[in-house]
Amino acid sequence: MHNPAQFADRCSVEQVEEGLELAPKFDANGLLPCITADATSGEALMLGWMNAEALRLTIATGQAHYWSRSRQVLWHKGATSGLVQQVVEMRIDDDQDALWLRVRVLAGPHSDPASCHVGYRSCFYRSVEPGSGKLRFVEAAKTFEPRVVYGDAPNPTVL
Amino acid sequence: MHNPAQFADRCSVEQVEEGLELAPKFDANGLLPCITADATSGEALMLGWMNAEALRLTIATGQAHYWSRSRQVLWHKGATSGLVQQVVEMRIDDDQDALWLRVRVLAGPHSDPASCHVGYRSCFYRSVEPGSGKLRFVEAAKTFEPRVVYGDAPNPTVL
Repeated sequence: MHNPAQFADRCSVEQVEEGLELAPKFDANGLLPCITADATSGEALMLGWMNAEALRLTIATGQAHYWSRSRQVLWHKGATSGLVQQVVEMRIDDDQDALWLRVRVLAGPHSDPASCHVGYRSCFYRSVEPGSGKLRFVEAAKTFEPRVVYGDAPNPTVL
Repeated sequence: MHNPAQFADRCSVEQVEEGLELAPKFDANGLLPCITADATSGEALMLGWMNAEALRLTIATGQAHYWSRSRQVLWHKGATSGLVQQVVEMRIDDDQDALWLRVRVLAGPHSDPASCHVGYRSCFYRSVEPGSGKLRFVEAAKTFEPRVVYGDAPNPTVL
């Protein structure tokens, strides 16, 4: 990708599945889902979404960038909180419509490393119990207090 | 979830983020993205999609079910290949619009455990190199030969 504005065209299944060119398939909204996990523990931290610009910036800078669907803006993760995600490894799947980012999360001025706007280390802080489908908290406590880190910024959760 | 056909209504941000009721937010197509990872190694195996029925069946049976977007059918993973994914733990994220499934993949009659239709262990068998964006194979060889396992079934990759 000498011209970082360009991704390869998708010409054949063989090229997409077995080739060495990045030829991502963005969805109808121009987005790719991205699994972001702790590079050491393997813990899934969040599921983010990248548009073409976020993908280019993540590749170019080595720090995770996403498209915020709730705020409809390019999102340099950690810009507000300091909780930047340094990319250790990026992978793409067989048909090139999903990403797996293995990251090291930096500490922020007000928090140990964490990736969830609610204050937990991982966004996946609750398990779904087999059979009953009830939720159970897996993380015992929040890593940070959202109001301290985000102030009065609106909560991105959409009902 | 005594009635497994019912999920809770989404009434407030506090309920969704801090409650114990499963109240998933399906997307415009009625789907939730699901990160499926090896429960022992943490390796991301695939990013699948579940509709309400697939989610209910996964909770009820302890085996991963998805909605196949390419084939537009409910998909019991492993029904053809034998490569069933036994659920070790299911988690849901803060706003309940994404799942993380930690699984143990069973071996099939023609293959060691694997989850990728191309024949690799993980769908994420290529890394994206920082800076250049070129792809590099991370898995050295396929775990199975797709034609042996799937016969002449159409390739699900869409250009």
